Amino acid sequence: MEELKEECGVFGIYDNNNNLDVARLVYFSLYALQHRGQESCGIAVSSNKEITGYKNMGLVSEVFNNNILNSLQGRQGIGQVRYSTTGASNINNAQPIIVHYRDGMMAVAHNGNLVNTNELRKQMYDNGDVFISGTDTALIVKLLAQKIVTSASIEEAVEKAMAVMKGSYAMVVLLEGKLLAFRDPWGLRPLCLGKLRDSYVISSESCAFSTIGATFIRDIAPGEIIIVDEQGLHSYQTKTPERSAICVFEYVYFARQDSYIDGVSVHAARLEAGRILAKEHPVEADLVIGAPDSAISGAIGYARESGIPYGPGLIRNRYVGRTFIQPTQELRDAAVRIKFSALQNEIEGKRVVMLDDSIVRGTTTRIIVQMLKNAGAKEVHMRISSPPIKYSCYYGIDTSTSSQLIASKLSVEEIRKMIGADTLGYLSLEGLLKTPVGIKGGLCDACFTGNYCAGCCKQKP
Amino acid sequence: MEELKEECGVFGIYDNNNNLDVARLVYFSLYALQHRGQESCGIAVSSNKEITGYKNMGLVSEVFNNNILNSLQGRQGIGQVRYSTTGASNINNAQPIIVHYRDGMMAVAHNGNLVNTNELRKQMYDNGDVFISGTDTALIVKLLAQKIVTSASIEEAVEKAMAVMKGSYAMVVLLEGKLLAFRDPWGLRPLCLGKLRDSYVISSESCAFSTIGATFIRDIAPGEIIIVDEQGLHSYQTKTPERSAICVFEYVYFARQDSYIDGVSVHAARLEAGRILAKEHPVEADLVIGAPDSAISGAIGYARESGIPYGPGLIRNRYVGRTFIQPTQELRDAAVRIKFSALQNEIEGKRVVMLDDSIVRGTTTRIIVQMLKNAGAKEVHMRISSPPIKYSCYYGIDTSTSSQLIASKLSVEEIRKMIGADTLGYLSLEGLLKTPVGIKGGLCDACFTGNYCAGCCKQKP
Amino acid sequence: MEELKEECGVFGIYDNNNNLDVARLVYFSLYALQHRGQESCGIAVSSNKEITGYKNMGLVSEVFNNNILNSLQGRQGIGQVRYSTTGASNINNAQPIIVHYRDGMMAVAHNGNLVNTNELRKQMYDNGDVFISGTDTALIVKLLAQKIVTSASIEEAVEKAMAVMKGSYAMVVLLEGKLLAFRDPWGLRPLCLGKLRDSYVISSESCAFSTIGATFIRDIAPGEIIIVDEQGLHSYQTKTPERSAICVFEYVYFARQDSYIDGVSVHAARLEAGRILAKEHPVEADLVIGAPDSAISGAIGYARESGIPYGPGLIRNRYVGRTFIQPTQELRDAAVRIKFSALQNEIEGKRVVMLDDSIVRGTTTRIIVQMLKNAGAKEVHMRISSPPIKYSCYYGIDTSTSSQLIASKLSVEEIRKMIGADTLGYLSLEGLLKTPVGIKGGLCDACFTGNYCAGCCKQKP
Amino acid sequence: MEELKEECGVFGIYDNNNNLDVARLVYFSLYALQHRGQESCGIAVSSNKEITGYKNMGLVSEVFNNNILNSLQGRQGIGQVRYSTTGASNINNAQPIIVHYRDGMMAVAHNGNLVNTNELRKQMYDNGDVFISGTDTALIVKLLAQKIVTSASIEEAVEKAMAVMKGSYAMVVLLEGKLLAFRDPWGLRPLCLGKLRDSYVISSESCAFSTIGATFIRDIAPGEIIIVDEQGLHSYQTKTPERSAICVFEYVYFARQDSYIDGVSVHAARLEAGRILAKEHPVEADLVIGAPDSAISGAIGYARESGIPYGPGLIRNRYVGRTFIQPTQELRDAAVRIKFSALQNEIEGKRVVMLDDSIVRGTTTRIIVQMLKNAGAKEVHMRISSPPIKYSCYYGIDTSTSSQLIASKLSVEEIRKMIGADTLGYLSLEGLLKTPVGIKGGLCDACFTGNYCAGCCKQKP
Repeated sequence: MEELKEECGVFGIYDNNNNLDVARLVYFSLYALQHRGQESCGIAVSSNKEITGYKNMGLVSEVFNNNILNSLQGRQGIGQVRYSTTGASNINNAQPIIVHYRDGMMAVAHNGNLVNTNELRKQMYDNGDVFISGTDTALIVKLLAQKIVTSASIEEAVEKAMAVMKGSYAMVVLLEGKLLAFRDPWGLRPLCLGKLRDSYVISSESCAFSTIGATFIRDIAPGEIIIVDEQGLHSYQTKTPERSAICVFEYVYFARQDSYIDGVSVHAARLEAGRILAKEHPVEADLVIGAPDSAISGAIGYARESGIPYGPGLIRNRYVGRTFIQPTQELRDAAVRIKFSALQNEIEGKRVVMLDDSIVRGTTTRIIVQMLKNAGAKEVHMRISSPPIKYSCYYGIDTSTSSQLIASKLSVEEIRKMIGADTLGYLSLEGLLKTPVGIKGGLCDACFTGNYCAGCCKQKP
Repeated sequence: MEELKEECGVFGIYDNNNNLDVARLVYFSLYALQHRGQESCGIAVSSNKEITGYKNMGLVSEVFNNNILNSLQGRQGIGQVRYSTTGASNINNAQPIIVHYRDGMMAVAHNGNLVNTNELRKQMYDNGDVFISGTDTALIVKLLAQKIVTSASIEEAVEKAMAVMKGSYAMVVLLEGKLLAFRDPWGLRPLCLGKLRDSYVISSESCAFSTIGATFIRDIAPGEIIIVDEQGLHSYQTKTPERSAICVFEYVYFARQDSYIDGVSVHAARLEAGRILAKEHPVEADLVIGAPDSAISGAIGYARESGIPYGPGLIRNRYVGRTFIQPTQELRDAAVRIKFSALQNEIEGKRVVMLDDSIVRGTTTRIIVQMLKNAGAKEVHMRISSPPIKYSCYYGIDTSTSSQLIASKLSVEEIRKMIGADTLGYLSLEGLLKTPVGIKGGLCDACFTGNYCAGCCKQKP
Repeated sequence: MEELKEECGVFGIYDNNNNLDVARLVYFSLYALQHRGQESCGIAVSSNKEITGYKNMGLVSEVFNNNILNSLQGRQGIGQVRYSTTGASNINNAQPIIVHYRDGMMAVAHNGNLVNTNELRKQMYDNGDVFISGTDTALIVKLLAQKIVTSASIEEAVEKAMAVMKGSYAMVVLLEGKLLAFRDPWGLRPLCLGKLRDSYVISSESCAFSTIGATFIRDIAPGEIIIVDEQGLHSYQTKTPERSAICVFEYVYFARQDSYIDGVSVHAARLEAGRILAKEHPVEADLVIGAPDSAISGAIGYARESGIPYGPGLIRNRYVGRTFIQPTQELRDAAVRIKFSALQNEIEGKRVVMLDDSIVRGTTTRIIVQMLKNAGAKEVHMRISSPPIKYSCYYGIDTSTSSQLIASKLSVEEIRKMIGADTLGYLSLEGLLKTPVGIKGGLCDACFTGNYCAGCCKQKP
Repeated sequence: MEELKEECGVFGIYDNNNNLDVARLVYFSLYALQHRGQESCGIAVSSNKEITGYKNMGLVSEVFNNNILNSLQGRQGIGQVRYSTTGASNINNAQPIIVHYRDGMMAVAHNGNLVNTNELRKQMYDNGDVFISGTDTALIVKLLAQKIVTSASIEEAVEKAMAVMKGSYAMVVLLEGKLLAFRDPWGLRPLCLGKLRDSYVISSESCAFSTIGATFIRDIAPGEIIIVDEQGLHSYQTKTPERSAICVFEYVYFARQDSYIDGVSVHAARLEAGRILAKEHPVEADLVIGAPDSAISGAIGYARESGIPYGPGLIRNRYVGRTFIQPTQELRDAAVRIKFSALQNEIEGKRVVMLDDSIVRGTTTRIIVQMLKNAGAKEVHMRISSPPIKYSCYYGIDTSTSSQLIASKLSVEEIRKMIGADTLGYLSLEGLLKTPVGIKGGLCDACFTGNYCAGCCKQKP
């Protein structure tokens, strides 16, 4: 509910028979990935030797129109939706980044965040390099070109690039006649492979596949390089650390509930977290409600386990988007009230279990609790379907510095008082491990535990 | 779920102490009314003798920015969100309409649809009148000016205008130093009164009041004229027909579930419709799901009454907006798949009760049923929380001509086959009368019954 | 040189064989009329029963593009370029004004300025009329519709409308299947008729005809009504006052030098004014220069008569347009220096005769004189090719109130001192009468003489 | 008259006292340089460690507004107007180019054209470099950064960069706290230095100085590097070839007539060319006219020398700009007729000497000659104030391939026939050498002679 800044979503397609409307397929897929980034978006397509593209600030629906889509003709295409995690919020940083290099043109889209950006940038700066964009993706583009001109093959070049890229990256790349995709060795960000008739598609989340009628094939493995070209799909597995480490927040908050990530249904994971939370923090109440959209699955799980009825007690205005104008001081709580409304008729006179996926700074939660009480809730029992966030993240989630993370400073009881809830219960770390996500394992849960992945997080900035 | 074209939402405020940010309050309120119209929006404010305004095609979030809001300084303000029911979809038809007339300037915003438009327009044309906009609102503006210049008072003028306006209208009007509001004698469209500290606010729906922190006072009565000025609020009750006739679809589909209309909670009405539907059309099933957002309350009602668990089995992409580019023929089902996704993990292997508020043409419903089956539903039992729509509407709802209304041509069993559901059940008219809406009475249910309001619908075009 | 606010230019075409690109022909013609108004422009075309149009703030080159032109399909078309003389500068006041009226649609473009606007508006207001635009053109549109619905024919309607319209108007109007044009009985603003193959064209100035390859036929007479339709061209002569009264400033400043107005070449008129000025105010000098573009012809005339060589001593930046951002106080003379530059190499060490068409407030002239002296002119002899402007204009020229007219307050000698010239000479009224314009006669020269046309200027505001 | 594609104009300022409105001064200067490029423009300003900028396609008047200028706060600023000579016409190629490099940020604006682009690019590509823009300026930016990180000082770095840059370049560069300017060793493009109170300004042409009230100090020498910082102005002279080689077309066509370039008044040079042309190709005639704006000075020269009166017989529409929509085939000559009009009254019945600065393809000239004859000219004697263009240019002038240059294929007599003139005379090369430009010497006149500068043009592409 409280906005964790989303990061990015990427998508790629290689039209095997040269009969698909590539740009429109990317466009529709970006709609399905829009929840991963609302700041800017872009599409690049490759046709013969030329890569053309269009990108701008704004939502997919704002940036593209029929004229633009018609102008993007090509057989391979990639797209990206972005929320800035590194680099200022401006058009220079929008993706895909399209460049000329020795062998023609290249387009690159990235979801993730390098942790050795400063080190890499310093090396390149010392070499006299210049960058129009301040993002780590600009460094990756340069790195790829550099490795390609000194390697015998594309796969060798990518493997060499990956060897120096520390941090999270799920990438799609257009080269002449080729669609490339690769995922960091820890698998910190999701990436999966699908098929639309006999053409391959690649996406941050599987939900994009159902949107365009494609079929999910499998997740792309941590450290895997995929190259699709006229000869078909080639996979190369690079060396990976002992265990993978997908970001636990993909399941908790980022991903859409109808996606499957690394074999686990996001909805099932959230539902089960709600069920375990109900066991860990039961309460006598009349109604379970959830914060839309990410905490609905958890609320359903809590309701099913506890037997307390579920109800749509909090609704979300679906027209509040990126360009929302901040209210003046006079109207300072309005921002939350415009986004969320309590459904008085459902809540009035009831003891309410309010389920949310996480608490970051606690300010929004406090306003929501107040909103529920104003709507007549007799009691508000706050339940959080993940453990307290105590540690900052270095991989592309804007949870700010730990000083702003309320759980890094206050005890659960202090947080409860601060948000004004009658009770407050977080899912325990043990509880999390019992959910499908925990059972699957291979998680990065550093935001809960402070256990940053060895070999990667050492370089944390 | 299937798009009934929404119509319009209006809002007005009179800043009693001259210390509110009037334009921003209208702006935030229009966010809360955005579900009533996504085609164009506008704000007009009045300051001394001047009325200034801004309007354009697009969502509230697209049309306004800080510069524009800052330029709109005034003590009274009105706003409108619009979906065209009459007049082509162009900027000339956006509202508020601002004009110069004998006594200064006037701004007018209208929700509704006159049925004697042709007759009125003919009279005015014969008088040599010209209109830039082809909407019925343009006629109303002219009518108001005409009546004002021939009347002793504003209330007399409005009463005279209302006497010749047949059809539905809920209106807010800015005159110099005055905020006006009035509702047609049948009360076909909602309009309510609230207070923000000691300033009066008027809105199509009460949900706008909670957004800006205002308090709901009461509904504006059918045929009532409200004038707010320096002397405070004045109410005038004009003659009304024997019974009022609010559009039943406000409860079924148009209004936001947290609004109260004519004393009835929209959510409660939908919840009860779901409950009665469960009694009328019970079925053995494993899961109840609803079409977001309008049918969720009904699905919860069905689930609570039947004891079958509720689940979020169908999710809606909240980034699909007005400017959505239609897929090509190649991708012809994509439009529905981009808007809605089945939550496979929730549905798979289950007998599903799928609740929707209505079926218009049936095409979307058919695709959704297929989508659920593809996601693994063993059975799909379609339940509609309102009676079959058999008759066209002449009051501002774009249900097209009756020939496109599937229920006007096919029996329930034929519709079931066409949409591919295992069973199909509509709420009966008797069932509807048992819901809070039915108990309240004073409905226009012509779309179900063909009983168009006497004295008004006789002039149907 | 000093900006007299230009007013408007109008153009119309009736495609006799339905094989012309009407919108593009209007578009190219508006380029040729752009000097008459740079604030807004628009085109309307009529096809069957529909009139469509596009207008916006800005230059022709800024407002239109290929997509817009392609969307404007029709057999008759009109266009307008506008500088606001009445009504604020906003999009509502842009023309053509397109309205619905009893017999279909109507589009109206107007060059001129009514002087009985207030009286007419009051009558209409008392009748309950409303106006979106505050311009006098909005009143004319209403008047035309009113007269059409109460007349037996279009020509009768226009004649009746003209009977109540006091002031200046040169108009083109689209009705269904008809192109209308008429000129006020005094002929205050120019309007002429041409032919493009066998299709009629109408324009404020003949320069538009050469642009599109059309041939000039004749001037439209004061008080004449032209109707072009399937039956060809019809002309109706309404009653006119004893003498016509075309605005003398059309020759002095407004019109393009390659136009012919009421039988007189604008260039020849200016050239001769320069010659007579040379006789009236001879001076010993080395160089004659003129203010581009309007005073070049006059400078050439002065040079030819005096035998002093002509030189391009002052040049004008042709990229300074409407959207020019005003310099801050710090840079307060920059506005003139950006528009005009002295050609030092041409001027240095010389005694310069500087010819301009008029002096309004004198501020620009003072800066120019200084600029010439800075560039090394030994002496600057200012010569003005028209008499001093002492009286305000009520017909569409923004010469502001007489209090700002420097010649209404100061003697020639005082003006000379104020502008810093070594000598200053104006063309005498007698001199003006010896030019082709004076010989032609039928002028409104009220700005020089204060003799406002009887029967028309009595109603001056 | 016939459009030789202009190239670029650059401007820079270092505000010595931190009290100037830097962005507005650049903006006004770009107005004065607009004739050098109308495709795109941009401004960059440097404040502390940050360089911010804005650029877009379009004229200065279209691209900038008050909000944008207000957002550009800084103590140093540079600007550019551009016509693409290399690289496609798109926003990626607009300048200034702003990049991050080792020591902070850098902004670069370039007028000119490298001839060893391919060679340089290949080297960089082989090093793994990537470029967003395909222009040679992108290579220069990289080169500068590379040299800075390997040099002891900025001047050393620039000198090293210049050593590998072959071709034409007049550049302004922003580094942190520094304004840099340098000119290629041949001095192919102009660049000059001025002072605004005690702040230094740098411009492609001196005409920008008079616009902002600055004083011309001197030309920047071929091969000179200027660095302005807190310590004032530093000049470094790099090695230059034996003779300099400024493009002769700067005098013939590109520059504004009020500019002084390398000590020579552009107007004086053109005037004298006209005079010599009158001696070389005298003719009995009644009127001398010139093609606006570039050939007016030459026409005046011809008239003065020959004693034949000068007249403004051809006028140019000053509203025809970049976004001019091309007429359809139907209207194929309209493009020229919209830009130019013959002044019939001036020309009719006369034997006309028509002076132009050059003939490229001859198509426009042919239409103009026809236009003059249609306007009644008895004879048209074409005089060209420069020698025939027979050879392509590799330095930033788009005279296309030599196959399109009419003088490379046809004799003078054949050209005369093709354009339909009664006589045709070009200025001879000997004549050119007698003008102030010829006397000054140090020209690149390869387009006339084929003598490409040694050491530079060998690398021609």
